Amino acid sequence: MSVTDDLLAHNATYAETFQGPLPLPPAKGVAVLACMDARLNVYGILGLNEGEAHVIRNAGGVVTDDEIRSLAISQRLLGTREIILIHHTDCGMLTFTDDAFKRSIQDETGIKPEWAAEAFPDLDEDVRQSVRRITSSPFVPHTDQVRGFVFDVATGKLNEVA
Amino acid sequence: MSVTDDLLAHNATYAETFQGPLPLPPAKGVAVLACMDARLNVYGILGLNEGEAHVIRNAGGVVTDDEIRSLAISQRLLGTREIILIHHTDCGMLTFTDDAFKRSIQDETGIKPEWAAEAFPDLDEDVRQSVRRITSSPFVPHTDQVRGFVFDVATGKLNEVA
Repeated sequence: MSVTDDLLAHNATYAETFQGPLPLPPAKGVAVLACMDARLNVYGILGLNEGEAHVIRNAGGVVTDDEIRSLAISQRLLGTREIILIHHTDCGMLTFTDDAFKRSIQDETGIKPEWAAEAFPDLDEDVRQSVRRITSSPFVPHTDQVRGFVFDVATGKLNEVA
Repeated sequence: MSVTDDLLAHNATYAETFQGPLPLPPAKGVAVLACMDARLNVYGILGLNEGEAHVIRNAGGVVTDDEIRSLAISQRLLGTREIILIHHTDCGMLTFTDDAFKRSIQDETGIKPEWAAEAFPDLDEDVRQSVRRITSSPFVPHTDQVRGFVFDVATGKLNEVA
């Protein structure tokens, strides 16, 4: 049995006590953008319940065109106004460089990815430049409430850095 | 007080009972790719605990270069092998077209986004083509366990479609 099959069994339990459907627009008017890291349970960290906030996640919690797309849809079509950006300590993105990662892929596949890997050497600095990518985008209309945090995987605490 | 301030107060409670740090690689070797929709509590839906799976999310749960980037990092650097793709009923992406959304942004800002909005008219079809985008990528090495689901926001159940 695959891990996926095992997780699907959990879904049956979840559905037994599920209360739905809730409205489509996020009740708290917030979009969270966080790293995909397995240790970041965004609902737990922020005390979120189903229906309250959009949650966008990727390797690093970085801001590329796809996060601008998601934030534009979130604010323009579904009414969110605040953005919470979350990076975290012990992040995998601190452990490699774009050049080395893309070189290893090219060596194995014969193709160099056309995208940036978005690795970064400094957590706080990358939170700050990620906030700037959002506030400088012409497509995200509400940028007066964009705040950036580093989640500490040892303590469970969010520390504000931008 | 902003909603963000309110959520930060919840974080203090979360940290009180937090047990960390856990290892960086996801314990279950799974990456989940799901829509950002507020009603999708991915940890709850799949019975996941902290440290078990990467969670990647965006508007629609679609597959663009940024999701390939995240999946490549997940599999190549952090050892995941299975991928679970989740779209859902009552999705905002069913309610507009790329052309209309981008036109409205251009009318307001004077700039047409250079990215696709990735709206889709058919849920099951988009799950299937999203799985195909993953399996056809040269950069995601393990694609024998990529399964696609539609989450029902009324019942809390995952229905497999690809």
